[in-house]
Amino acid sequence: MNRQQNILIIGAGLCGSLLALRLGQRGYNVTVYEMRPDLRKVDISAGRSINLAFSDRGIKAMKLVGIQEKVESLCIPMHGRMLHDLEGNTTLAPYSGRDHEYINSISRGQLNALLLDEAEKHENVTIHFNKKCKSVNFEKTTASFKNYETGNLFIEDADVIIATDGAGSAMRKSYYLGKKFLFSFSQDWLSHGYKELSILPDEKGSYKAYKNALHIWGREDFMLIALPNLDGSFTVTLFLSYDEGEYNFNNLTTKSRVLEFFEKYFKDALSLMPNLVDDFFNNPTSALGTVKCSPWHYKGNTLLMGDAAHAIVPFYGQGMNASFEDVVEFDKILEQGHSSWEAVFKNYEKNRKKDTDAIADLAIDNFYEMKGHVNHVNFREKRNLEMAFEKTFPNEYSSKYSLVTFNEDIGYREAMLRGRAQDKAILNMLADGTLNLEDNLKTNLAKVKYETENILEDDRIAGLN
Amino acid sequence: MNRQQNILIIGAGLCGSLLALRLGQRGYNVTVYEMRPDLRKVDISAGRSINLAFSDRGIKAMKLVGIQEKVESLCIPMHGRMLHDLEGNTTLAPYSGRDHEYINSISRGQLNALLLDEAEKHENVTIHFNKKCKSVNFEKTTASFKNYETGNLFIEDADVIIATDGAGSAMRKSYYLGKKFLFSFSQDWLSHGYKELSILPDEKGSYKAYKNALHIWGREDFMLIALPNLDGSFTVTLFLSYDEGEYNFNNLTTKSRVLEFFEKYFKDALSLMPNLVDDFFNNPTSALGTVKCSPWHYKGNTLLMGDAAHAIVPFYGQGMNASFEDVVEFDKILEQGHSSWEAVFKNYEKNRKKDTDAIADLAIDNFYEMKGHVNHVNFREKRNLEMAFEKTFPNEYSSKYSLVTFNEDIGYREAMLRGRAQDKAILNMLADGTLNLEDNLKTNLAKVKYETENILEDDRIAGLN
Repeated sequence: MNRQQNILIIGAGLCGSLLALRLGQRGYNVTVYEMRPDLRKVDISAGRSINLAFSDRGIKAMKLVGIQEKVESLCIPMHGRMLHDLEGNTTLAPYSGRDHEYINSISRGQLNALLLDEAEKHENVTIHFNKKCKSVNFEKTTASFKNYETGNLFIEDADVIIATDGAGSAMRKSYYLGKKFLFSFSQDWLSHGYKELSILPDEKGSYKAYKNALHIWGREDFMLIALPNLDGSFTVTLFLSYDEGEYNFNNLTTKSRVLEFFEKYFKDALSLMPNLVDDFFNNPTSALGTVKCSPWHYKGNTLLMGDAAHAIVPFYGQGMNASFEDVVEFDKILEQGHSSWEAVFKNYEKNRKKDTDAIADLAIDNFYEMKGHVNHVNFREKRNLEMAFEKTFPNEYSSKYSLVTFNEDIGYREAMLRGRAQDKAILNMLADGTLNLEDNLKTNLAKVKYETENILEDDRIAGLN
Repeated sequence: MNRQQNILIIGAGLCGSLLALRLGQRGYNVTVYEMRPDLRKVDISAGRSINLAFSDRGIKAMKLVGIQEKVESLCIPMHGRMLHDLEGNTTLAPYSGRDHEYINSISRGQLNALLLDEAEKHENVTIHFNKKCKSVNFEKTTASFKNYETGNLFIEDADVIIATDGAGSAMRKSYYLGKKFLFSFSQDWLSHGYKELSILPDEKGSYKAYKNALHIWGREDFMLIALPNLDGSFTVTLFLSYDEGEYNFNNLTTKSRVLEFFEKYFKDALSLMPNLVDDFFNNPTSALGTVKCSPWHYKGNTLLMGDAAHAIVPFYGQGMNASFEDVVEFDKILEQGHSSWEAVFKNYEKNRKKDTDAIADLAIDNFYEMKGHVNHVNFREKRNLEMAFEKTFPNEYSSKYSLVTFNEDIGYREAMLRGRAQDKAILNMLADGTLNLEDNLKTNLAKVKYETENILEDDRIAGLN
């Protein structure tokens, strides 16, 4: 555990580069191998600007490594969901009743570049690109790589290997295929895939739609969303079934059918996307999966972190935030001063896994919420009531969304249990008339809090949480 | 879909041989390949008599194929759990308040042999042994096998392939590794493994413990169970953590330590097992896993069934029953007369998967119930009340256990939802004093029913079931 130890990190994406930076700050000898070219030198996004939701758990990690202000300049605040109905009417549904609570749109590439720059400032951190990890020998603590520039294979040795190589992790595959220990593993695919499209800036370079919101066209069986980029464009994502329903990815095979689909369901968006058909046929359709596994570590030799340990669907905007939070939580365990890497890894997983399991489940819940529930009367009534609670009694109530997104000191699991209990309390009391939206707000808040505690207690007695 | 079609079944275990029998009865040309030798000719259990719990869902399947009476002669009724405490005191906790509801202990080998005999009576059914499936080409509907007698590899072609090759299914592996479609898959291991032991008959060939019960020594962190065999012996199974706690499989490495462990925790059982140490060191320690996956079928070519599609832990005594029920449910879909195998497979999975997912979860719940909860006061009070309901109002109440085990016309998922809601209602009303065990039983039943409906309705409104 001395700081001269050699730590090998596989993958220099968002999680790997933040981890390299933090371990570099702590004085370890850190070597990072990344399969892709250096994104600061080569445009690897092939013209697409992929953006992500960035919020308080991610910001907490930026504070830990001291680059919060640099990151802020990359952020576009989004204060709520801009809901677009079939007729093109829009409603802004805020994320919180507290004005200082909002999420941000941020460019994956720009943020990753910043993290790489910061990590490389430490002379004890070295990052190699174009080196693809093929497998990890977790008993010998070695990893084999292919050098994409020369085609050569080579093996690297280290005191510790941490794999942050994403949802398709080579090290996780070695755990699974190695069969040297009982490895629990799941991959779950949604019936829907996604495709990225774009709304380009207008001729003056300005945003064609309201900049400070996450736009949603929720149509029950499918949906379109849009997040702003700094250059005046929006990255648009279509979530659609592969093979079910009248329109699906498998049968949207002609220009006219794609236009017909958008004309019928996303007319206002279509008018902002003259480039739709080109985007649609140039960009890939990708799958949406959840990965869980355990154990994350093999003895004190190797550890999975970030998407390699827990890939989630994007609907809570928490994928990157959760991976950044991994680094914060890992750093906390390091700070406890355990005497072995095995103790560090064991404690880290024990503390952390319940939370990454929870955000995985919450993210799937939010898929159904975004594409459908946001349009339902009972859901809207619940949200209106919660916004009023948060606005009027800012220190006394946080919705499930707020607990997950803006309360970085509450774990995802606790946020899930409390948030779901609150939702259940409100939806049931609205349904049976116990809550009346015209009643005194303070009375209603007291009822919701009381009923929430009852629900949590009933589940506890039944052994359900 | 005509009956001259060739159906290839991989695996002649309990599910595969029942399926072969049923499809043989329906007139299909059925060929079965089994990796093991013919268990009617070779003793492949290596001296161990493995028995299983057999109950109403399994019996329904035997009725479907008309061999119910033959199977009955293999059954030993078990009317309840015989709970053994640390001091050796025993309590019989019945499975139901209705006398005609009980489970059975049955020999896996004898039942399998009967099913093979019955299947082979149909000249359109052929069963080959010692042929191990290596992989399945689900696009070409071919399977490759190794002949264990000659060492040769060969490929078989069929109109349809159904894999009933168990938890380690070769076809499921081909689905996973093939990456030709989005295959959701999970394997989850418990921290506990198991080891089979035995209580041999006494010198007169009689049972050394009460014959008609499932014996349980529940010790919170581990447990021992015993099921009777027709020859006067009991098959005993120890469930214990691999590496946690003072005693675990990894540290029970010497004769004296094993004896110390049994002396301390299973004294009365130890006195019946002079052969303990030999059994302990001769028999393997095996893992306990749950497997779920989807889709089960590839187009109309191939289908997974039984443990190959949904392996579960043994604690609800439903593994074999669930696999037999697969055949009943598959037969129902066949009876509907769909025009393609793809439609049959799709409808079968759509109807069935929710139920096999549910029994997988219920089986894990029961692990905790058996090793610990059965000893807790609140759990025992609940069970006593439920037994009284079932005895006094036999047509008005069924416990979760009864819904799962004795109500073969209710799906596992419905049994789970209703059973869990009942448990939650009773545990909470006992905790808050709403139910008093000395009150009028009819009043208490009415309260439980009312509260159960409330719980189900609250979950429904919150979108939780």
